[in-house]
Amino acid sequence: MSESNKPRLEVCMSPALLHLYDVKDSIVVIIDVLRATSTICTALYNGAARIIPVADVAECVRIGQALGAITAGERDGKIAEGLQYGNSPFEYPRSFVEGKTVVLTTTNGTKLLHMAKDARQIITGSFPNLSAVCDYLVSRQQHVILGCAAWKDRVNMEDTLFAGAVVSRIRDHFQVNCDSALLAEQAYLSGKHDLFEFMRGATHFKRLIGFGLEKDVRYCLTPDSAPVLPLLVNNELIAFQG
Amino acid sequence: MSESNKPRLEVCMSPALLHLYDVKDSIVVIIDVLRATSTICTALYNGAARIIPVADVAECVRIGQALGAITAGERDGKIAEGLQYGNSPFEYPRSFVEGKTVVLTTTNGTKLLHMAKDARQIITGSFPNLSAVCDYLVSRQQHVILGCAAWKDRVNMEDTLFAGAVVSRIRDHFQVNCDSALLAEQAYLSGKHDLFEFMRGATHFKRLIGFGLEKDVRYCLTPDSAPVLPLLVNNELIAFQG
Repeated sequence: MSESNKPRLEVCMSPALLHLYDVKDSIVVIIDVLRATSTICTALYNGAARIIPVADVAECVRIGQALGAITAGERDGKIAEGLQYGNSPFEYPRSFVEGKTVVLTTTNGTKLLHMAKDARQIITGSFPNLSAVCDYLVSRQQHVILGCAAWKDRVNMEDTLFAGAVVSRIRDHFQVNCDSALLAEQAYLSGKHDLFEFMRGATHFKRLIGFGLEKDVRYCLTPDSAPVLPLLVNNELIAFQG
Repeated sequence: MSESNKPRLEVCMSPALLHLYDVKDSIVVIIDVLRATSTICTALYNGAARIIPVADVAECVRIGQALGAITAGERDGKIAEGLQYGNSPFEYPRSFVEGKTVVLTTTNGTKLLHMAKDARQIITGSFPNLSAVCDYLVSRQQHVILGCAAWKDRVNMEDTLFAGAVVSRIRDHFQVNCDSALLAEQAYLSGKHDLFEFMRGATHFKRLIGFGLEKDVRYCLTPDSAPVLPLLVNNELIAFQG
Protein backbone atom coordinates (compact mmCIF):
# COMPACT_ATOMS: atom_id res chain seq x y z
CA MET A 1 0.00 0.00 0.00
CA SER A 2 1.44 3.43 -0.86
CA GLU A 3 1.98 5.86 2.01
CA SER A 4 -0.85 8.16 0.97
CA ASN A 5 -3.38 5.33 0.83
CA LYS A 6 -2.75 4.27 4.37
CA PRO A 7 -5.09 5.43 7.12
CA ARG A 8 -3.87 8.16 9.49
CA LEU A 9 -2.47 7.45 12.94
CA GLU A 10 -2.50 10.44 15.30
CA VAL A 11 -1.98 11.11 18.98
CA CYS A 12 -4.04 13.63 20.95
CA MET A 13 -2.14 14.39 24.15
CA SER A 14 -4.99 16.04 26.09
CA PRO A 15 -8.80 16.14 26.00
CA ALA A 16 -8.44 19.92 25.63
CA LEU A 17 -6.94 19.32 22.17
CA LEU A 18 -9.51 16.79 20.96
CA HIS A 19 -11.44 19.43 18.98
CA LEU A 20 -8.43 19.66 16.62
CA TYR A 21 -8.95 16.08 15.45
CA ASP A 22 -11.53 14.50 13.16
CA VAL A 23 -13.05 12.02 15.60
CA LYS A 24 -16.10 11.27 13.44
CA ASP A 25 -13.99 9.59 10.83
CA SER A 26 -11.74 7.68 13.24
CA ILE A 27 -11.43 4.93 15.79
CA VAL A 28 -10.63 6.69 19.05
CA VAL A 29 -8.57 4.80 21.60
CA ILE A 30 -9.25 6.11 25.11
CA ILE A 31 -6.03 5.88 27.15
CA ASP A 32 -5.99 6.33 30.93
CA VAL A 33 -3.14 4.09 31.98
CA LEU A 34 -3.20 5.00 35.71
CA ARG A 35 -5.65 3.45 36.18
CA ALA A 36 -9.06 3.58 34.51
CA THR A 37 -8.39 1.83 31.23
CA SER A 38 -6.04 -0.70 32.86
CA THR A 39 -8.84 -1.57 35.27
CA ILE A 40 -11.47 -1.71 32.51
CA CYS A 41 -9.59 -4.30 30.48
CA THR A 42 -8.71 -6.25 33.62
CA ALA A 43 -12.35 -6.45 34.75
CA LEU A 44 -13.51 -7.50 31.27
CA TYR A 45 -10.70 -10.04 30.99
CA ASN A 46 -11.81 -11.44 34.33
CA GLY A 47 -15.31 -11.95 32.98
CA ALA A 48 -17.24 -8.76 33.80
CA ALA A 49 -20.35 -8.69 31.60
CA ARG A 50 -20.03 -4.98 30.87
CA ILE A 51 -18.68 -1.70 32.19
CA ILE A 52 -20.83 1.39 32.02
CA PRO A 53 -18.68 4.55 32.03
CA VAL A 54 -20.45 7.56 33.53
CA ALA A 55 -19.37 11.14 34.03
CA ASP A 56 -20.17 11.76 37.69
CA VAL A 57 -20.63 10.09 41.05
CA ALA A 58 -24.37 10.83 41.37
CA GLU A 59 -25.09 9.19 38.02
CA CYS A 60 -22.88 6.27 39.00
CA VAL A 61 -24.92 5.69 42.18
CA ARG A 62 -28.27 6.12 40.39
CA ILE A 63 -27.48 3.68 37.57
CA GLY A 64 -25.77 1.27 39.94
CA GLN A 65 -28.87 1.09 42.14
CA ALA A 66 -31.23 0.75 39.16
CA LEU A 67 -29.23 -2.18 37.75
CA GLY A 68 -28.06 -3.75 40.99
CA ALA A 69 -24.55 -3.21 39.68
CA ILE A 70 -21.14 -2.59 41.23
CA THR A 71 -20.50 1.15 41.60
CA ALA A 72 -16.89 2.12 41.21
CA GLY A 73 -14.70 5.11 40.64
CA GLU A 74 -12.17 7.55 41.86
CA ARG A 75 -11.55 11.23 42.22
CA ASP A 76 -7.99 12.51 42.48
CA GLY A 77 -6.63 8.98 42.73
CA LYS A 78 -8.83 7.79 45.65
CA ILE A 79 -12.19 5.95 45.88
CA ALA A 80 -14.88 8.56 45.30
CA GLU A 81 -17.14 9.24 48.26
CA GLY A 82 -20.44 7.35 47.97
CA LEU A 83 -19.06 4.57 45.75
CA GLN A 84 -18.32 0.97 46.76
CA TYR A 85 -15.11 0.31 44.89
CA GLY A 86 -12.16 2.19 43.46
CA ASN A 87 -10.04 2.24 40.41
CA SER A 88 -7.52 -0.49 41.18
CA PRO A 89 -7.30 -3.44 38.81
CA PHE A 90 -6.74 -5.66 41.87
CA GLU A 91 -10.26 -4.95 43.09
CA TYR A 92 -11.69 -6.87 40.14
CA PRO A 93 -10.57 -10.52 40.26
CA ARG A 94 -12.62 -13.14 38.44
CA SER A 95 -14.05 -14.42 41.75
CA PHE A 96 -15.63 -11.02 42.30
CA VAL A 97 -16.46 -9.56 38.91
CA GLU A 98 -17.39 -12.49 36.64
CA GLY A 99 -20.77 -11.97 35.04
CA LYS A 100 -21.31 -8.64 36.77
CA THR A 101 -21.97 -5.10 35.58
CA VAL A 102 -19.64 -2.35 36.79
CA VAL A 103 -20.69 1.31 36.67
CA LEU A 104 -17.49 3.38 36.62
CA THR A 105 -16.60 7.04 36.94
CA THR A 106 -13.05 8.41 36.96
CA THR A 107 -11.33 11.80 36.99
CA ASN A 108 -10.10 11.78 33.43
CA GLY A 109 -10.78 8.61 31.44
CA THR A 110 -14.56 8.56 31.53
CA LYS A 111 -14.63 12.30 30.79
CA LEU A 112 -12.62 11.83 27.59
CA LEU A 113 -14.75 8.86 26.61
CA HIS A 114 -17.85 11.03 26.70
CA MET A 115 -16.12 13.82 24.78
CA ALA A 116 -15.30 11.35 21.99
CA LYS A 117 -18.85 10.04 21.67
CA ASP A 118 -19.15 11.00 17.99
CA ALA A 119 -16.22 8.80 17.00
CA ARG A 120 -16.66 6.13 14.36
CA GLN A 121 -15.76 3.70 17.11
CA ILE A 122 -14.40 3.88 20.66
CA ILE A 123 -12.10 1.33 22.29
CA THR A 124 -9.93 1.58 25.39
CA GLY A 125 -6.19 0.97 25.64
CA SER A 126 -3.57 0.44 28.31
CA PHE A 127 -0.47 -1.70 28.74
CA PRO A 128 -2.37 -4.77 30.02
CA ASN A 129 -4.12 -4.96 26.65
CA LEU A 130 -1.43 -3.40 24.40
CA SER A 131 -1.23 -6.23 21.88
CA ALA A 132 -4.99 -6.60 21.69
CA VAL A 133 -5.30 -2.89 20.84
CA CYS A 134 -2.54 -3.03 18.23
CA ASP A 135 -3.91 -6.16 16.56
CA TYR A 136 -7.38 -4.67 16.39
CA LEU A 137 -6.22 -1.36 14.91
CA VAL A 138 -4.12 -3.04 12.24
CA SER A 139 -7.04 -5.30 11.28
CA ARG A 140 -9.53 -2.42 10.89
CA GLN A 141 -7.63 -0.20 8.43
CA GLN A 142 -9.37 2.94 9.66
CA HIS A 143 -8.01 6.30 10.76
CA VAL A 144 -6.94 6.14 14.41
CA ILE A 145 -6.72 8.78 17.14
CA LEU A 146 -4.87 7.68 20.26
CA GLY A 147 -6.60 9.85 22.86
CA CYS A 148 -4.74 10.46 26.09
CA ALA A 149 -7.01 11.13 29.07
CA ALA A 150 -4.20 13.17 30.67
CA TRP A 151 -4.62 14.68 34.15
CA LYS A 152 -7.23 17.44 34.32
CA ASP A 153 -6.27 18.34 30.74
CA ARG A 154 -2.53 18.47 31.50
CA VAL A 155 -0.39 16.22 29.31
CA ASN A 156 0.83 13.24 31.31
CA MET A 157 3.69 10.82 30.97
CA GLU A 158 1.95 7.46 31.30
CA ASP A 159 -0.75 7.99 28.67
CA THR A 160 1.82 9.47 26.30
CA LEU A 161 4.05 6.41 26.81
CA PHE A 162 1.23 4.04 25.98
CA ALA A 163 0.33 6.02 22.87
CA GLY A 164 4.00 5.83 21.91
CA ALA A 165 4.05 2.08 22.43
CA VAL A 166 1.15 1.71 20.00
CA VAL A 167 2.77 4.05 17.44
CA SER A 168 6.05 2.14 17.60
CA ARG A 169 4.27 -1.19 17.06
CA ILE A 170 1.87 -0.34 14.23
CA ARG A 171 3.30 2.74 12.46
CA ASP A 172 4.14 0.80 9.29
CA HIS A 173 0.44 0.22 8.66
CA PHE A 174 -0.43 3.93 8.86
CA GLN A 175 0.49 7.43 7.73
CA VAL A 176 2.07 9.19 10.70
CA ASN A 177 2.00 12.92 10.04
CA CYS A 178 1.57 14.10 13.61
CA ASP A 179 4.34 15.48 15.83
CA SER A 180 2.55 14.31 18.99
CA ALA A 181 2.81 10.76 17.67
CA LEU A 182 6.54 11.21 17.02
CA LEU A 183 7.12 12.67 20.49
CA ALA A 184 5.13 9.88 22.14
CA GLU A 185 6.98 7.21 20.20
CA GLN A 186 10.33 8.73 21.13
CA ALA A 187 9.38 8.83 24.81
CA TYR A 188 8.36 5.18 24.67
CA LEU A 189 11.54 4.14 22.89
CA SER A 190 13.59 5.99 25.52
CA GLY A 191 11.74 4.38 28.41
CA LYS A 192 10.63 0.95 27.28
CA HIS A 193 13.47 -0.99 28.88
CA ASP A 194 12.16 -0.03 32.31
CA LEU A 195 8.95 1.98 32.21
CA PHE A 196 8.63 1.98 36.00
CA GLU A 197 12.02 3.67 36.41
CA PHE A 198 11.35 6.00 33.49
CA MET A 199 8.15 7.15 35.21
CA ARG A 200 9.82 8.14 38.50
CA GLY A 201 9.56 11.89 37.94
CA ALA A 202 6.00 11.84 36.62
CA THR A 203 3.33 13.62 38.62
CA HIS A 204 0.70 10.87 38.87
CA PHE A 205 3.38 8.25 39.49
CA LYS A 206 4.47 10.21 42.55
CA ARG A 207 0.84 10.72 43.62
CA LEU A 208 0.00 6.99 43.45
CA ILE A 209 3.28 5.84 45.01
CA GLY A 210 2.50 8.30 47.82
CA PHE A 211 -0.80 6.44 48.33
CA GLY A 212 1.13 3.14 48.63
CA LEU A 213 0.02 1.90 45.21
CA GLU A 214 3.34 0.72 43.74
CA LYS A 215 1.83 -2.69 42.97
CA ASP A 216 -0.93 -1.03 40.92
CA VAL A 217 1.57 1.12 39.04
CA ARG A 218 3.78 -1.87 38.18
CA TYR A 219 0.78 -3.83 36.95
CA CYS A 220 -0.48 -0.90 34.85
CA LEU A 221 2.91 -0.58 33.12
CA THR A 222 3.21 -4.29 32.25
CA PRO A 223 2.05 -5.38 28.80
CA ASP A 224 -0.50 -8.01 27.95
CA SER A 225 -1.64 -9.43 31.26
CA ALA A 226 -5.32 -8.78 30.32
CA PRO A 227 -5.50 -9.46 26.58
CA VAL A 228 -8.97 -8.28 25.73
CA LEU A 229 -10.35 -5.45 23.58
CA PRO A 230 -12.92 -3.22 25.32
CA LEU A 231 -15.32 -1.83 22.73
CA LEU A 232 -18.01 0.79 23.38
CA VAL A 233 -21.43 -0.42 22.19
CA ASN A 234 -24.58 1.43 23.23
CA ASN A 235 -22.65 3.35 25.86
CA GLU A 236 -21.35 0.16 27.44
CA LEU A 237 -17.86 -1.28 27.26
CA ILE A 238 -17.89 -4.96 26.39
CA ALA A 239 -15.18 -7.42 25.38
CA PHE A 240 -14.88 -7.55 21.59
CA GLN A 241 -15.43 -11.06 20.25
CA GLY A 242 -13.13 -11.08 17.22
CA MET B 1 17.93 25.97 48.36
CA SER B 2 15.50 23.14 49.24
CA GLU B 3 13.41 21.69 46.43
CA SER B 4 10.15 23.21 47.67
CA ASN B 5 11.61 26.72 47.85
CA LYS B 6 12.68 26.72 44.24
CA PRO B 7 10.48 28.40 41.64
CA ARG B 8 8.44 26.18 39.29
CA LEU B 9 9.53 25.34 35.76
CA GLU B 10 6.70 24.12 33.51
CA VAL B 11 6.14 23.48 29.82
CA CYS B 12 2.89 24.31 28.04
CA MET B 13 2.87 22.35 24.78
CA SER B 14 0.06 24.25 23.03
CA PRO B 15 -1.69 27.64 23.32
CA ALA B 16 -4.92 25.64 23.78
CA LEU B 17 -3.55 24.45 27.14
CA LEU B 18 -2.34 27.84 28.40
CA HIS B 19 -5.45 28.35 30.55
CA LEU B 20 -4.24 25.48 32.76
CA TYR B 21 -1.19 27.48 33.84
CA ASP B 22 -0.76 30.42 36.19
CA VAL B 23 0.68 32.95 33.75
CA LYS B 24 0.13 35.96 36.04
CA ASP B 25 2.69 34.71 38.50
CA SER B 26 5.27 33.58 35.91
CA ILE B 27 7.75 34.58 33.29
CA VAL B 28 6.35 33.18 30.05
CA VAL B 29 8.83 32.25 27.33
CA ILE B 30 7.19 32.38 23.91
CA ILE B 31 8.69 29.64 21.72
CA ASP B 32 8.12 29.54 17.95
CA VAL B 33 11.32 27.96 16.68
CA LEU B 34 10.30 27.74 13.00
CA ARG B 35 10.62 30.64 12.59
CA ALA B 36 9.08 33.60 14.44
CA THR B 37 11.12 33.67 17.63
CA SER B 38 14.33 32.70 15.81
CA THR B 39 13.76 35.68 13.51
CA ILE B 40 12.88 38.00 16.40
CA CYS B 41 16.14 37.40 18.26
CA THR B 42 18.12 37.56 15.02
CA ALA B 43 16.66 40.95 14.06
CA LEU B 44 17.27 42.34 17.56
CA TYR B 45 20.78 40.91 17.62
CA ASN B 46 21.39 42.64 14.30
CA GLY B 47 20.40 45.95 15.81
CA ALA B 48 16.67 46.33 15.17
CA ALA B 49 15.35 49.02 17.52
CA ARG B 50 12.18 47.09 18.33
CA ILE B 51 9.78 44.48 17.06
CA ILE B 52 6.07 45.07 17.43
CA PRO B 53 4.15 41.78 17.41
CA VAL B 54 0.61 42.08 16.09
CA ALA B 55 -2.17 39.57 15.64
CA ASP B 56 -3.24 40.13 12.06
CA VAL B 57 -2.12 41.38 8.67
CA ALA B 58 -4.41 44.42 8.57
CA GLU B 59 -3.08 45.68 11.90
CA CYS B 60 0.45 45.01 10.70
CA VAL B 61 -0.07 47.19 7.62
CA ARG B 62 -1.83 49.95 9.57
CA ILE B 63 0.85 50.22 12.29
CA GLY B 64 3.65 49.80 9.76
CA GLN B 65 2.35 52.74 7.72
CA ALA B 66 1.78 54.93 10.78
CA LEU B 67 5.35 54.34 12.01
CA GLY B 68 7.10 54.10 8.67
CA ALA B 69 8.23 50.65 9.83
CA ILE B 70 9.05 47.37 8.13
CA THR B 71 5.95 45.17 7.85
CA ALA B 72 6.67 41.49 8.09
CA GLY B 73 4.97 38.20 8.66
CA GLU B 74 3.81 34.87 7.38
CA ARG B 75 0.74 32.74 7.11
CA ASP B 76 1.12 28.99 6.72
CA GLY B 77 4.88 29.32 6.28
CA LYS B 78 4.84 31.90 3.45
CA ILE B 79 5.03 35.71 3.32
CA ALA B 80 1.56 36.99 4.10
CA GLU B 81 -0.20 38.83 1.29
CA GLY B 82 0.11 42.60 1.68
CA LEU B 83 3.31 42.50 3.73
CA GLN B 84 6.81 43.43 2.58
CA TYR B 85 8.89 40.79 4.29
CA GLY B 86 8.54 37.27 5.62
CA ASN B 87 9.56 35.24 8.57
CA SER B 88 13.07 34.19 7.59
CA PRO B 89 15.96 35.22 9.86
CA PHE B 90 18.04 35.77 6.71
CA GLU B 91 15.81 38.66 5.68
CA TYR B 92 17.07 40.70 8.64
CA PRO B 93 20.84 41.28 8.36
CA ARG B 94 22.37 44.21 10.19
CA SER B 95 22.75 46.16 6.93
CA PHE B 96 18.98 46.12 6.55
CA VAL B 97 17.47 46.12 10.02
CA GLU B 98 19.82 48.17 12.22
CA GLY B 99 17.96 50.95 14.01
CA LYS B 100 14.64 50.03 12.39
CA THR B 101 11.23 49.03 13.73
CA VAL B 102 9.71 45.76 12.51
CA VAL B 103 5.96 45.11 12.78
CA LEU B 104 5.51 41.34 12.74
CA THR B 105 2.58 38.95 12.48
CA THR B 106 2.89 35.15 12.34
CA THR B 107 0.58 32.14 12.32
CA ASN B 108 1.31 30.92 15.83
CA GLY B 109 3.96 32.85 17.73
CA THR B 110 2.35 36.28 17.82
CA LYS B 111 -1.00 34.68 18.69
CA LEU B 112 0.45 32.98 21.78
CA LEU B 113 2.24 36.17 22.74
CA HIS B 114 -1.05 38.03 22.88
CA MET B 115 -2.72 35.19 24.80
CA ALA B 116 -0.01 35.45 27.47
CA LYS B 117 -0.37 39.21 27.90
CA ASP B 118 -1.17 38.95 31.63
CA ALA B 119 2.12 37.24 32.41
CA ARG B 120 4.47 38.72 35.01
CA GLN B 121 6.91 39.05 32.13
CA ILE B 122 7.16 37.85 28.53
CA ILE B 123 10.38 36.95 26.73
CA THR B 124 10.95 34.97 23.53
CA GLY B 125 13.11 31.90 23.08
CA SER B 126 14.59 29.84 20.26
CA PHE B 127 17.83 28.00 19.63
CA PRO B 128 19.70 31.09 18.33
CA ASN B 129 19.29 32.63 21.81
CA LEU B 130 19.16 29.47 23.95
CA SER B 131 21.91 30.43 26.37
CA ALA B 132 20.63 34.00 26.73
CA VAL B 133 17.20 32.62 27.71
CA CYS B 134 18.66 30.12 30.19
CA ASP B 135 20.95 32.66 31.82
CA TYR B 136 18.10 35.15 32.20
CA LEU B 137 15.70 32.60 33.72
CA VAL B 138 18.27 31.38 36.24
CA SER B 139 19.08 34.95 37.25
CA ARG B 140 15.43 35.92 37.85
CA GLN B 141 14.38 33.17 40.29
CA GLN B 142 10.74 33.42 39.24
CA HIS B 143 8.26 30.75 38.17
CA VAL B 144 8.69 29.97 34.48
CA ILE B 145 6.28 28.71 31.83
CA LEU B 146 7.90 27.61 28.59
CA GLY B 147 5.07 28.29 26.15
CA CYS B 148 5.19 26.46 22.84
CA ALA B 149 3.45 28.31 20.00
CA ALA B 150 2.76 24.94 18.34
CA TRP B 151 1.04 24.76 14.94
CA LYS B 152 -2.58 25.91 14.97
CA ASP B 153 -2.79 24.55 18.51
CA ARG B 154 -1.33 21.16 17.58
CA VAL B 155 1.74 20.15 19.60
CA ASN B 156 4.83 20.40 17.45
CA MET B 157 8.28 18.87 17.59
CA GLU B 158 10.52 21.90 17.23
CA ASP B 159 9.02 24.03 20.01
CA THR B 160 8.92 21.00 22.31
CA LEU B 161 12.60 20.33 21.58
CA PHE B 162 13.56 23.89 22.47
CA ALA B 163 11.52 23.73 25.69
CA GLY B 164 13.33 20.48 26.45
CA ALA B 165 16.71 22.10 25.82
CA VAL B 166 15.89 24.78 28.38
CA VAL B 167 14.64 22.23 30.93
CA SER B 168 17.76 20.13 30.55
CA ARG B 169 20.01 23.16 31.07
CA ILE B 170 18.34 24.85 34.04
CA ARG B 171 16.28 22.17 35.83
CA ASP B 172 18.54 22.17 38.90
CA HIS B 173 17.48 25.72 39.68
CA PHE B 174 13.77 24.91 39.62
CA GLN B 175 11.09 22.52 40.83
CA VAL B 176 10.04 20.43 37.84
CA ASN B 177 6.69 18.84 38.62
CA CYS B 178 5.26 18.82 35.11
CA ASP B 179 5.11 15.80 32.81
CA SER B 180 5.24 18.01 29.71
CA ALA B 181 8.60 19.28 30.89
CA LEU B 182 9.86 15.71 31.38
CA LEU B 183 8.63 14.67 27.94
CA ALA B 184 10.18 17.72 26.30
CA GLU B 185 13.47 17.15 28.07
CA GLN B 186 13.52 13.50 27.03
CA ALA B 187 12.83 14.43 23.40
CA TYR B 188 15.69 16.93 23.46
CA LEU B 189 18.09 14.46 25.07
CA SER B 190 17.19 11.91 22.39
CA GLY B 191 17.69 14.35 19.53
CA LYS B 192 20.36 16.80 20.63
CA HIS B 193 23.25 15.14 18.84
CA ASP B 194 21.65 16.00 15.50
CA LEU B 195 18.47 18.03 15.81
CA PHE B 196 18.15 18.42 12.06
CA GLU B 197 18.08 14.66 11.52
CA PHE B 198 15.82 14.16 14.55
CA MET B 199 13.32 16.58 13.03
CA ARG B 200 13.00 14.74 9.70
CA GLY B 201 9.54 13.31 10.37
CA ALA B 202 8.11 16.51 11.87
CA THR B 203 5.24 18.19 10.05
CA HIS B 204 6.55 21.76 9.85
CA PHE B 205 10.04 20.52 9.02
CA LYS B 206 8.61 18.78 5.97
CA ARG B 207 6.53 21.85 5.09
CA LEU B 208 9.52 24.23 5.19
CA ILE B 209 11.90 21.84 3.44
CA GLY B 210 9.20 21.55 0.76
CA PHE B 211 9.44 25.35 0.33
CA GLY B 212 13.23 25.04 -0.14
CA LEU B 213 14.02 26.48 3.27
CA GLU B 214 16.59 23.98 4.55
CA LYS B 215 19.04 26.81 5.29
CA ASP B 216 16.44 28.48 7.53
CA VAL B 217 15.70 25.25 9.34
CA ARG B 218 19.38 24.53 9.99
CA TYR B 219 19.91 28.05 11.32
CA CYS B 220 16.82 27.85 13.55
CA LEU B 221 18.07 24.60 15.13
CA THR B 222 21.58 25.92 15.88
CA PRO B 223 22.25 27.33 19.34
CA ASP B 224 23.54 30.76 20.23
CA SER B 225 24.17 32.50 16.94
CA ALA B 226 22.02 35.48 18.06
CA PRO B 227 22.74 35.84 21.79
CA VAL B 228 20.21 38.43 22.83
CA LEU B 229 17.19 38.38 25.14
CA PRO B 230 13.97 39.78 23.58
CA LEU B 231 11.80 41.23 26.33
CA LEU B 232 8.24 42.53 25.90
CA VAL B 233 7.91 46.10 27.20
CA ASN B 234 4.83 48.17 26.39
CA ASN B 235 3.81 45.67 23.70
CA GLU B 236 7.17 45.94 21.98
CA LEU B 237 9.98 43.42 21.96
CA ILE B 238 13.32 45.02 22.71
CA ALA B 239 16.76 43.64 23.51
CA PHE B 240 17.20 43.29 27.27
CA GLN B 241 20.17 45.28 28.54
CA GLY B 242 21.35 43.10 31.46
